Amino acid sequence: MTWEEIAADKKARITASIPPEWRISSIPKTSNVMDYPKASGILSTEELAITESSATDLVAELAMGKLTSVAVTTAFLKRAALAHQLLNCALEFFPEIALARARELDAHYEKTGKTVGPLHGLPISLKDQCHIKGLETCMGYVSWVGKYATEDSVIVTLLYKAGAVFYVKTSVPQTLMICETINNVIGRTVNPRNKNLSPGGSSGGEGAIVGFRGGVIGFGTDLGGSIRVPAAFNFLYGLRPSHGRLPYAKMANSMEGQESVPSVCGPLTHSIKDMRLFVKSVLAEEPWKYDSKVIPIPWRQSEENAVKLKLSSGRLTLAYYNSNSIVLPHPPILRGVETVATTLKEAGHDVVEWVPYKPAYAHALVSRVYGSDEATDLITTLKESGEPLIPNLSNDQWPKKLDINELWDVHFQKYAFQLEYLEQIRLAEEKLGKEIDAIITPVAATAAVRHDQFKYYAYTNIVNLLDFTSVVVPVTFADKNIDKKQEDYTPLNDYDKMVYDEYDADAYHGAPVAIQVIGKRLTEEKTMAIAEEIGRLLGN
Amino acid sequence: MTWEEIAADKKARITASIPPEWRISSIPKTSNVMDYPKASGILSTEELAITESSATDLVAELAMGKLTSVAVTTAFLKRAALAHQLLNCALEFFPEIALARARELDAHYEKTGKTVGPLHGLPISLKDQCHIKGLETCMGYVSWVGKYATEDSVIVTLLYKAGAVFYVKTSVPQTLMICETINNVIGRTVNPRNKNLSPGGSSGGEGAIVGFRGGVIGFGTDLGGSIRVPAAFNFLYGLRPSHGRLPYAKMANSMEGQESVPSVCGPLTHSIKDMRLFVKSVLAEEPWKYDSKVIPIPWRQSEENAVKLKLSSGRLTLAYYNSNSIVLPHPPILRGVETVATTLKEAGHDVVEWVPYKPAYAHALVSRVYGSDEATDLITTLKESGEPLIPNLSNDQWPKKLDINELWDVHFQKYAFQLEYLEQIRLAEEKLGKEIDAIITPVAATAAVRHDQFKYYAYTNIVNLLDFTSVVVPVTFADKNIDKKQEDYTPLNDYDKMVYDEYDADAYHGAPVAIQVIGKRLTEEKTMAIAEEIGRLLGN
Repeated sequence: MTWEEIAADKKARITASIPPEWRISSIPKTSNVMDYPKASGILSTEELAITESSATDLVAELAMGKLTSVAVTTAFLKRAALAHQLLNCALEFFPEIALARARELDAHYEKTGKTVGPLHGLPISLKDQCHIKGLETCMGYVSWVGKYATEDSVIVTLLYKAGAVFYVKTSVPQTLMICETINNVIGRTVNPRNKNLSPGGSSGGEGAIVGFRGGVIGFGTDLGGSIRVPAAFNFLYGLRPSHGRLPYAKMANSMEGQESVPSVCGPLTHSIKDMRLFVKSVLAEEPWKYDSKVIPIPWRQSEENAVKLKLSSGRLTLAYYNSNSIVLPHPPILRGVETVATTLKEAGHDVVEWVPYKPAYAHALVSRVYGSDEATDLITTLKESGEPLIPNLSNDQWPKKLDINELWDVHFQKYAFQLEYLEQIRLAEEKLGKEIDAIITPVAATAAVRHDQFKYYAYTNIVNLLDFTSVVVPVTFADKNIDKKQEDYTPLNDYDKMVYDEYDADAYHGAPVAIQVIGKRLTEEKTMAIAEEIGRLLGN
Repeated sequence: MTWEEIAADKKARITASIPPEWRISSIPKTSNVMDYPKASGILSTEELAITESSATDLVAELAMGKLTSVAVTTAFLKRAALAHQLLNCALEFFPEIALARARELDAHYEKTGKTVGPLHGLPISLKDQCHIKGLETCMGYVSWVGKYATEDSVIVTLLYKAGAVFYVKTSVPQTLMICETINNVIGRTVNPRNKNLSPGGSSGGEGAIVGFRGGVIGFGTDLGGSIRVPAAFNFLYGLRPSHGRLPYAKMANSMEGQESVPSVCGPLTHSIKDMRLFVKSVLAEEPWKYDSKVIPIPWRQSEENAVKLKLSSGRLTLAYYNSNSIVLPHPPILRGVETVATTLKEAGHDVVEWVPYKPAYAHALVSRVYGSDEATDLITTLKESGEPLIPNLSNDQWPKKLDINELWDVHFQKYAFQLEYLEQIRLAEEKLGKEIDAIITPVAATAAVRHDQFKYYAYTNIVNLLDFTSVVVPVTFADKNIDKKQEDYTPLNDYDKMVYDEYDADAYHGAPVAIQVIGKRLTEEKTMAIAEEIGRLLGN
């Protein structure tokens, strides 16, 4: 078979996995499809309510026997089926397996009166890097279509132990190396709020499906922004934990073995409450016993409590910047950051400006890591099927392969940069006479971006270089009446010009706008608690 | 200058740093020099008592004002001066700087009645990878002689904040890559219990000086056994923490930037009590604020308490092996491991056999990392001065340089091996129905080894590959009357034959014998507590 035939067959199999009664007879013409589930008539009123609940409420009701897993799973299956038909977001959809699992959990509950774990009966969507034994993991590569997993990824094992139900694996960009979602297997995934916009990437299938509430908790990965950008572009919360907090073992990946700046995994959710449910549930399974890279730090309630104490009896100290002085974010993003800073100040918190530290240097350094093998791994995988590179990538963009001693030099520079960054924080804290609790920054230069226009990764990948913790908080939506293009803006450089020129108030109208709350390394509990407070103040 | 002249000058400068009144007029002819300090007449009775105290007692007396830092520092300076003259263990000796610091601390105490920190006034010896601003760090390389540090290593900064006094930096083997201590700058460091034996390496200067009580707490590094072997060969406790527990930042190293199997740092001490003092003192300074690779885990008293609870109301479950089935340890080591196993069983603990998992594969894998740049880094540094390789290393031993994609494959294999090892532990634990608290194994195939005979690193470097925590516990001494050579032993392979043939009961008589207690990753508090109990049961 040609690669086109392989892809077409795979695509047809995904479509065929959707039962006829969940098929959409005529795809709506509107670019915003958020209201379609209600209009479709496919979901019952109860199913609509289930899919619009929080995961926290759902597991509580499942644990009390007020809902069955079959009911919950069916609701999300239906909505996910709509999501795929509207947004093209699934690489695997397996309602029968999901329902069999749900029935098994319901039977267990009926028999014992007990749940199997804190996620009992809850459907969770997975980025298609996760292996589920017996299912395909093509990860957007044509050559991997037909590769059936022989064992589960560790996160799958642990979520399963915690009681989760799996029902869908979602799409990714070819190579995983861009912040949109397009591949030669199923094509492009689009944003449920505006099909002309991207859901982000590389966990873009997760962003789209959870944004559309075809899932309540999604699970993605982040090497340079791949959890945060889809969270931001779909008005979701997203956690990019520090490396070693959540288990990545036995997941598929590109550039496998690249440890210089490691990819990490984490959830995309509608609330911090649900994010916390996910993280606590996984940590309760002691992932460090299964994954050697997971650090044995259980959930630290004390770290969350320390934030609560500050909120009740003091104030937070937050630094922020709205531009890294290389590429100016679009007007909606600038407004988003300023909104958060103002809201925090008005609530009595100390908000201080942060001067981005060597952003151009950091961007060049982390990019050198991403390109360190001259894309040998990526190109080799493409050659196996003959599929071309997606247009968002180009063969000329890769720098020369690093020699191993050059790689070590890069590691040395990375370590030195991290040390300098810590020093910057210490110096700022000494000056303030107190700890900086987090740094608030844009997630990207744009709101949910127009297709094929995501160009600038430095707002997210600085976090990967530092291995800090970052939590995305949804803020607002681009508004053509407020977020005017500054026609006389003088770009700082060619890159800045390219990004700024692309802004169009009409095209971006309604696109989600988010910020990220960046905490120091391995401060997930604390950073999530701060993100929760910001969300509360914003009313999101 | 030729490299020989540079080395001779450096050696002379070290000798000249010893005040005339601390010079030994005639070096004793005995191979065991442990009793020399008493016989020398250079240390007063009080100074002998100080140097034979524990660090824990010393800091307590310093904090109560019963001892001054000048008195304590002087005592260790004198004994270190003897150590260097007898054992050739120092690369930097700086009594004036040390005494100035001691005076400053005493003045602070006198003025405020308070200590500056938990190590107030205590001398600590440092491996010559540590930078102290203004002093040389030659690290055993001739080409680095004359390189004066422009800033302190992070561990130096933090120990200094905790109140420590620095007075000596100790010798290492050229390249740091062997478990003996010999370089072209000052030559060979020898074992205080028998000058015909090695003090181990690469932290061999630390092993020798602390073993001789020219220091009470030493600080070394471990990439493949370099803390544990010197601890074992000098009848000391040694901690090889998991990576990221203690700060390595801004220390000199060879193969800088090699992160595939990272070197770690830790203390060598006479007791677990002193080891704990060191670790707690460093963690109290929040090293993660200074070193991006340090994980923010403060001292976890609860982990230590959990062991104590098991000891008071239950039992430990310990696995062990005395041979990895590739190279049989010498008779004293086999007896050492069996002694520990028997002692533990007699004390009521569960002791089960552990089958080493793929030891040959693991050894080959970690060795591939050590040689991944074909020694380019090491050879380049040697070429700068023209000094030759030490005879323990050979130019033919390096495998071909890895391409970056080959390195990633090695990383993938490493990760897979770590996951399999965790699975082995889980399976064994399921079978036992309880947790395995630690695994007890030899540290090396030999007791403190004869010079130039250290050949087999697999008993230690498996821990580096897994990044587990390991604590060395001194057990006994080789005894020619018990540890007979098994003349009819049929070696398992050529390597085994080479190591076994080298055993000579007379030559090894009196050589220290130790075991290591291996805990899972980042279990320092727990593993130290188990090591303490083993030491207590052994009476060491």
